[in-house]
Amino acid sequence: MGVPEALPHDSDPAFPLHHGGKIEVRPTVRIRDAEGLSLAYTPGVARVSQAIAADPSLAYDLTWKANTVLVVSDGTAVLGLGDIGPEAALPVMEGKALLFKEFANVDAVPMCLDCTDTDAIVETVVRMAPAFGGVNLEDISAPRCFEIERRLQEQLDIPIFHDDQHGTAIVVTAALINAAAVSQRTLADLRVVVSGAGAAGVAVTNMLIDSGIGDIAVADSKGLVHPNRAGLTAVKADLAARTNRAGIEGPIEAAMAGADVFIGVSAGRVEEEWIANMAPDCIVFALANPDPEIAPELAGKHAAVVATGRSDYPNQINNVLAFPGVFRGALDVRATAITPRMKVAAAEAVAGAVGPDLAPDFIVPSPFNPRVAVEVAGRVAAAARADGVAQI
Amino acid sequence: MGVPEALPHDSDPAFPLHHGGKIEVRPTVRIRDAEGLSLAYTPGVARVSQAIAADPSLAYDLTWKANTVLVVSDGTAVLGLGDIGPEAALPVMEGKALLFKEFANVDAVPMCLDCTDTDAIVETVVRMAPAFGGVNLEDISAPRCFEIERRLQEQLDIPIFHDDQHGTAIVVTAALINAAAVSQRTLADLRVVVSGAGAAGVAVTNMLIDSGIGDIAVADSKGLVHPNRAGLTAVKADLAARTNRAGIEGPIEAAMAGADVFIGVSAGRVEEEWIANMAPDCIVFALANPDPEIAPELAGKHAAVVATGRSDYPNQINNVLAFPGVFRGALDVRATAITPRMKVAAAEAVAGAVGPDLAPDFIVPSPFNPRVAVEVAGRVAAAARADGVAQI
Repeated sequence: MGVPEALPHDSDPAFPLHHGGKIEVRPTVRIRDAEGLSLAYTPGVARVSQAIAADPSLAYDLTWKANTVLVVSDGTAVLGLGDIGPEAALPVMEGKALLFKEFANVDAVPMCLDCTDTDAIVETVVRMAPAFGGVNLEDISAPRCFEIERRLQEQLDIPIFHDDQHGTAIVVTAALINAAAVSQRTLADLRVVVSGAGAAGVAVTNMLIDSGIGDIAVADSKGLVHPNRAGLTAVKADLAARTNRAGIEGPIEAAMAGADVFIGVSAGRVEEEWIANMAPDCIVFALANPDPEIAPELAGKHAAVVATGRSDYPNQINNVLAFPGVFRGALDVRATAITPRMKVAAAEAVAGAVGPDLAPDFIVPSPFNPRVAVEVAGRVAAAARADGVAQI
Repeated sequence: MGVPEALPHDSDPAFPLHHGGKIEVRPTVRIRDAEGLSLAYTPGVARVSQAIAADPSLAYDLTWKANTVLVVSDGTAVLGLGDIGPEAALPVMEGKALLFKEFANVDAVPMCLDCTDTDAIVETVVRMAPAFGGVNLEDISAPRCFEIERRLQEQLDIPIFHDDQHGTAIVVTAALINAAAVSQRTLADLRVVVSGAGAAGVAVTNMLIDSGIGDIAVADSKGLVHPNRAGLTAVKADLAARTNRAGIEGPIEAAMAGADVFIGVSAGRVEEEWIANMAPDCIVFALANPDPEIAPELAGKHAAVVATGRSDYPNQINNVLAFPGVFRGALDVRATAITPRMKVAAAEAVAGAVGPDLAPDFIVPSPFNPRVAVEVAGRVAAAARADGVAQI
């Protein structure tokens, strides 16, 4: 194998930045002499271990468990790259760990698994779980991600959170709350079309329903999801039963005509004409990365508010606005799950963090606004208590 | 559940030291603005992930893999405490991670598994392995630990090292090299008796054979291991075939009569009379913790050199002299395994680090001697190259 003298892409500043990785494990206590060693390690540590053996809940006090999240991926749906395997997923998971610490002082351990079978992933995470305060699932492809998350939450008493679903849904909902406000609409009156029925599309749809949205239709690459469509998966049949109140069939543009909101979370292209046929002053979130479903300049000719997933345009929908604060809040109260109310609270906190500068080109806060994670955490913790999933 | 207002043992300084755990995950790069975010996370990280997808060996350069060890326990043989479960094992594994970083700048991730079945542990570690440069097995009970280590090393191309076996064996061998020197003996002439045929006893015995020891007899709680003994496990039958050259049967004291060295790695009590019957100027390593097999004061009435596992007596046999440097050396050359020669090299380096102050009450270096890990690492890396298991 050997190491190349120069890496292949050293002209790209992302490569030198990644040399040696982006995170490390450091002691929080210093051991300077034999006495310190005898407290932090044997024989002193044995007394601590005995106390935890007698009462395993003491692990929350006497280990890093209470502040530590396991970031689990199988490398099957990494960013827009698809199934690239566990080693290639690792830089993304290290990036998550970096952001967890930087934005919310959460310790996160990246874990890229060399297995993709649903049963194998579930049993592996259950076996790893005792030393962690929560599990962030990441970049696991649909539909396996839905079952994996559900089964893990059933088996474990720590919060399980698939960020590609719920992190995206929280920030999209936050952005939509503010987009509705700046375009003088209320959520209950909105007609929404979601393009994409994968992890993000399903979670966005569920969360908007939980948030009291008026009506929502979902399309995948075969067109609109409706109860009469043949060959729906279980997840899509469930979506069909709860969405598309008008029962529109056919291609996505059939539902976009007159709609207030378009939310793209797939790579399906959108024609300018379809946007032109939406309601006046419509809202367009074209979130596919790196190529939005429609160029923001074109969408902006017809829409009052345009958002993308890109940092080089206004209104970037970025999960980093949600996941650090969500886990900070969940860990702070030793939550046993992340409930729908906790996610809605997170969305409201993200939306509220924009403050008085709210405008059509400023519907989400900056990721570098230090208030975001603090406010998300506070609202999430309060919602956990209200829902009875807080242990402290 | 709830949290106690005051922990039960706050008068014990080990408890406040453990509050909140002993390690954290920190970024090694700082993200101060949107440009930094776009390099360390999306979209920049996607280019790094693509490069690794094309050549997974680039994970050694572009992630934390090359410097990171997974510390795996199932909590079944923790220190002298036995099977106390994964949560209770966590403080010990955090302690290992702390020492790995402090003494050798190795990043170590504690992983306490909620499974004890051999097959389950092997498959779980194989699934976790892609993101790690090595695996330190810890506090897994015998005889499962032997098969788990062997199968993992067969399946993975990173070094697998069960510290309770090999860390102990390396430091015992180092101490015996120096004890022989101060008592004017050569290893090839020594008659050794090992008390204990668990993880440590088997590994110590194997390593002393690899180091050219003259003769060695092993005893467990049922007495000496010999080929005529009924009901030997596979591991003990193998030991019987390679040890006890004189074919002594019966209790351990039968072999101790006239022996040069006693090495205790179990809790089996040793009578002063048995020590008195050993060769003149004998060597006694009574390593059971916290209660040595015989009080060092009693052993010292008859022995030229006495060592224990305790920090409050001279000659503490402490694994921390070995494991940080062993993994530092293995990681530095991206070793695919830890060979017998690498372990012998580590023992020779530990022994050599004592230097000119070598004396009967100073046969192992201080754990705080910064030269130890550096010299162990250098010798281990060189041995890995000599054995053809170094990748760079």
